[in-house]
Amino acid sequence: MSLSAKLFGTPFVVFMGDISNPVYGKTGLGLVQWRPDDCLGQIRLAGCSVDAGVLDLDVASAHARGARSLIVGSAAVGGRMPDHWVASLCDAARRGIDIVAGLHIPLSSLEGLADAAQAGGAKLVDVRVPPAGIPVGTGRKRTGRRVLMVGTDCATGKKYTALALARDLKAAGVDADFRATGQTGIMIAGAGMPIDAVVADFLTGAAEVLSPDHSEGHWDVIEGQGSLFHPGYLQVTVGLLVGSQPDAFVVCHDPLRSHISGWPDYALPSLSDVMARTIELGRLTNPAIRCVGISLNTSKVPPGEREALIAKFTAETGLPCVDPIRDGTQAIIDRLQAEFPA
Amino acid sequence: MSLSAKLFGTPFVVFMGDISNPVYGKTGLGLVQWRPDDCLGQIRLAGCSVDAGVLDLDVASAHARGARSLIVGSAAVGGRMPDHWVASLCDAARRGIDIVAGLHIPLSSLEGLADAAQAGGAKLVDVRVPPAGIPVGTGRKRTGRRVLMVGTDCATGKKYTALALARDLKAAGVDADFRATGQTGIMIAGAGMPIDAVVADFLTGAAEVLSPDHSEGHWDVIEGQGSLFHPGYLQVTVGLLVGSQPDAFVVCHDPLRSHISGWPDYALPSLSDVMARTIELGRLTNPAIRCVGISLNTSKVPPGEREALIAKFTAETGLPCVDPIRDGTQAIIDRLQAEFPA
Repeated sequence: MSLSAKLFGTPFVVFMGDISNPVYGKTGLGLVQWRPDDCLGQIRLAGCSVDAGVLDLDVASAHARGARSLIVGSAAVGGRMPDHWVASLCDAARRGIDIVAGLHIPLSSLEGLADAAQAGGAKLVDVRVPPAGIPVGTGRKRTGRRVLMVGTDCATGKKYTALALARDLKAAGVDADFRATGQTGIMIAGAGMPIDAVVADFLTGAAEVLSPDHSEGHWDVIEGQGSLFHPGYLQVTVGLLVGSQPDAFVVCHDPLRSHISGWPDYALPSLSDVMARTIELGRLTNPAIRCVGISLNTSKVPPGEREALIAKFTAETGLPCVDPIRDGTQAIIDRLQAEFPA
Repeated sequence: MSLSAKLFGTPFVVFMGDISNPVYGKTGLGLVQWRPDDCLGQIRLAGCSVDAGVLDLDVASAHARGARSLIVGSAAVGGRMPDHWVASLCDAARRGIDIVAGLHIPLSSLEGLADAAQAGGAKLVDVRVPPAGIPVGTGRKRTGRRVLMVGTDCATGKKYTALALARDLKAAGVDADFRATGQTGIMIAGAGMPIDAVVADFLTGAAEVLSPDHSEGHWDVIEGQGSLFHPGYLQVTVGLLVGSQPDAFVVCHDPLRSHISGWPDYALPSLSDVMARTIELGRLTNPAIRCVGISLNTSKVPPGEREALIAKFTAETGLPCVDPIRDGTQAIIDRLQAEFPA
C-alpha cells in the first residue's frame, strides 16, 4: 500500500471557531506557520479572540477565493463540537469544500454534515483514522535514508524539529520529505499515518508504509511519538522506531521538565538513557542506527541561561544541540552529512 | 473498567466443522484439553476427520443436553466460513445457544446469523474484539502479584505454559488466575483481553485492565504474546510487559528453532538476550522484576536428547527449566515461592 495521495485539496482555510485560549488553537496556528503558501486565511466566528495572523474570511468568501478544504484548527473546550461550529462546516460542505478534522468521533457523525457533504460533493477527511489494509511489519531493509525524532517525553518538540529539519534539508539542496505520524503533522503535510490509532498488531507495518523504499540520497524526516520511557505510550514509540528502521535519530527534550508530563511518579529519562535505549531497540531493524543531534525547546528558559544550557548538553552528549525554532537545524544537518556522505 | 464478567455461558459444545487437518482445529482441541468439565462434546459435520476425543453431538442433541454456548473451534481453510458451517451456527443461535468465535470478521456479518440470534435470544461473542472504553496506561503500582510468559518468538508455548502454571499453582493451594491475551486463551478462560487487536495508544492500559488490583498472595498468570525481538510484533510484547508490571516472568522457548518463524532474516534471540531485555524494559513499571524459569517445548526433540538439552539450558541460565506438558511446572513454582515467600 502507499500513502502518496494527498488526503485533501489545497488551498485551504483554517477554521478557528470562537476560542479564547490559544492552546486550543495549536493545530490551526501550526498550519498557518508551516503551510503559509497553501493557506487562504482563517474563519473566526463572533467572539473568537485567538488570531492566527492571516486574512479573516467567512465560508462564502473562502469559497469565492477558491478554497478546496476547510481544516478544523481548533479543539472545542470540553471535547464536543458546538452546534454553531457544525453549522459552519455544513455550509462549507454544501459548497463543495472538503472538511478536514482530527476529532475523536467521525465527522460523519456530526448532525447534518454527511448530508451536506453529499449534496455538495465534498469529502469528509478524518485524519485520526488510519487507512485500511495496513500490513504486519516485515523488517525488510528499505532503500533511501531515514531520520526519526525521538523524545524524552511527549510534547517535547518532535513535530516542530522534524518540520524544521525537512525544511532546512530542502533548503540545503537535499532531497527530503517530512513524514507525519500525528494529526496536526498530517494536516500540515497533507498525508501521513496517525500511528497511535493503528491496531497494535500493525504498528510496525504502519511505520513501514509511512516511509517506503526511496531513491539513494533521499531522507525521510519522521515525526516521532511518545517516549521509550513513557509508561502509557512506549509501545507506540517502540513500534514506530522498529518499523521506521532509522539510520539516524534526533533526541527532542524540554530542559525544564523533571517528570513525564501527567505521570508525576515517573522521572524524565536522561538524554543518554534515551540515546542508549533507542540504539538498543532500533538495532533490531537497523544495526547502524546512530544519534546525530539534540533538539532543545528553550522557549521557557530564562534569558541569559540559554547558552549555558546548550553548552552543557553539547558537552554531555558530544553532539550538536540546537533549539530548531531559534537556531535552525544546520548544526544537525552538518552532522548528518558527515555521518552519511552523499 | 473490569473484565470479570464471563463472555459466554457454560456448558459449551465445540464446533469442529469438517476439517481434515488437526492444525486447523487447534482452538477446539485446546478447549477440550483445558476445559473438560465445561465441555459437553463436539459437533463434527459429515466428512470431519479430526476428532477431539469427546462425545459427538449435533446442534439438536447439544441443545437437549443444555448447551449454553457453541464455540467455533476450527478455522476454515482459506479463511472464509463455508455456508454449511454458517447454517449450523444459525440453527444453534435460533435455539438460544450463544455463538463464540475469533474470526477476522464479526459474527454478525455471516449470512442470517444476526437474525437467528435475535430470534433465539442468543449472544454473538467475537473474542477478537476488545471491549469499549479501554483507558490509557497509568503505570500505577497495583496490589497482588503477577507472572508473565515471554517468548523468544511467537508460538513457543506461552499459552500452554501459563495454563499449566495456573493449574499447578491452584493445585498447590496458591490463589491464582490464568489471564488470557489471545483468542484461544480467552475461549479457554471465558474472559480476557485480545491484546493484539487493541488500538496502539491503549495497549498498556489494556494490560492494566486485564490484571487489576488483587489480594495479597494472589498470582495472575498472564499469557504472553510475540517476542521483544520480533520485527513485526515487538510493540505488542512491550505494551503487555509494561502494562502487566510483572513481578516475575518465565521465558518460553522452542529449542529447535533458529530464526523468528516466518522472518528468516531474523535470528532467534538467546535466552539470556530475552531475559536481559525483559528486565530492562519491565523495570520501568516494576523495578524488582525477575526471571523465575524457562519453559521448553521439547515435543519435537528426538528421544534421548531431551535430558541433555534441559541440562544445558539449566546450566546456561541457573534457573529451573521444564517442559510444562511433560514435566509439569513444580520446579518453577518452587522458585517462585522461594523468590516471593508468602
